[in-house]
Amino acid sequence: MAATKRALALIARGSEEMELVITVDVLRRCNVDVTVALVPGTETGKDELVACCSRGVNVKADTTLQAYVEQHAATDDALPDAIILPGGLDGAKAMAQAAAVGTLLQRQQQAGKLVAAICAAPTVLVAHGKLFAGRRVTSYPSFREKMTEAGYVWEEPAAGSPLGRVVRDDNLITSLGPATTFDFGLAIGAALAGQEVADKVAAGLLYK
Amino acid sequence: MAATKRALALIARGSEEMELVITVDVLRRCNVDVTVALVPGTETGKDELVACCSRGVNVKADTTLQAYVEQHAATDDALPDAIILPGGLDGAKAMAQAAAVGTLLQRQQQAGKLVAAICAAPTVLVAHGKLFAGRRVTSYPSFREKMTEAGYVWEEPAAGSPLGRVVRDDNLITSLGPATTFDFGLAIGAALAGQEVADKVAAGLLYK
Repeated sequence: MAATKRALALIARGSEEMELVITVDVLRRCNVDVTVALVPGTETGKDELVACCSRGVNVKADTTLQAYVEQHAATDDALPDAIILPGGLDGAKAMAQAAAVGTLLQRQQQAGKLVAAICAAPTVLVAHGKLFAGRRVTSYPSFREKMTEAGYVWEEPAAGSPLGRVVRDDNLITSLGPATTFDFGLAIGAALAGQEVADKVAAGLLYK
Repeated sequence: MAATKRALALIARGSEEMELVITVDVLRRCNVDVTVALVPGTETGKDELVACCSRGVNVKADTTLQAYVEQHAATDDALPDAIILPGGLDGAKAMAQAAAVGTLLQRQQQAGKLVAAICAAPTVLVAHGKLFAGRRVTSYPSFREKMTEAGYVWEEPAAGSPLGRVVRDDNLITSLGPATTFDFGLAIGAALAGQEVADKVAAGLLYK
């Protein structure tokens, strides 16, 4: 039996809480081992792991990004199977500005491993050296021009497609926004745990 | 202009994090003033406001239920416009066992104010004296028999109904489970802030 897959979900102050929580929850239902790690400098108040998200929900991360990398991704062989970037304008800006996020995403791309970004988060890839440029992507529609100008091939995911409102180009998965996060989480789940597992989870969620 | 409406969303250890977070986020986008309050005895670790939800996401409440009632709902005139109960089996059990939850829900019912429950949470109403018994409700399908036996009229929300996968019977709004939480949040938003506001929020979420 295949070993459990590992995913790293980043969170920052201003991340879209639905996009983070739906993705993490769906993936854990798919038996993916997910760690939520806080982007440096975005903690809220005295607890160094709590981030105030875009609509004021306070989410406590499992660890800091620095501690995660030191303990679980110090070598390229140990990189997670997927790195997940939720949207939220301020959260995505924080991820775009954090050098540690860029370094990790560059290593993930070079290793040919999965990166998944939704809503405002595809712009994080642009900020860190136009990672995956040339690939087919989607994003919240207001970022279409920014992605296109940076050399990405922006697509509106076709309604009724088997993958839902998600664009997958090999090891890059992107999606549109809050209401497409179930599709996003299930697409990542299918990539990591298999379509059968994702379909079973979708049924349990009463999805579709 | 009407005053901003107030909602109280309860959270307990074991609450379904998607059902909590989607509802709170959607309602805040509808300009509803939402407070997330922790059910007594369900905090996680040393921070008295953090609850570990059903899939391990740690959410920090805004306040405790006791403090909320003392400060914002001490008199019946001050009750919130809506009380929201997310599902999650263990979270719903904790809410069913907490006397303070029952007292508040009984006051809310007597005042004729809105109560909204999703997934496992309609069983909380049963536990606290069969509140709203006789009403039309829905729930996660596995609780259908429990609700019916307790005297509720269980319905499967019709696909394609204007309200989505939600049952509304006057001041009681119920819904099915995780994947119907956008419908649930938008239905509460429409009840509190008007259909036009809810429709605008749905469009921004890229819903439908």
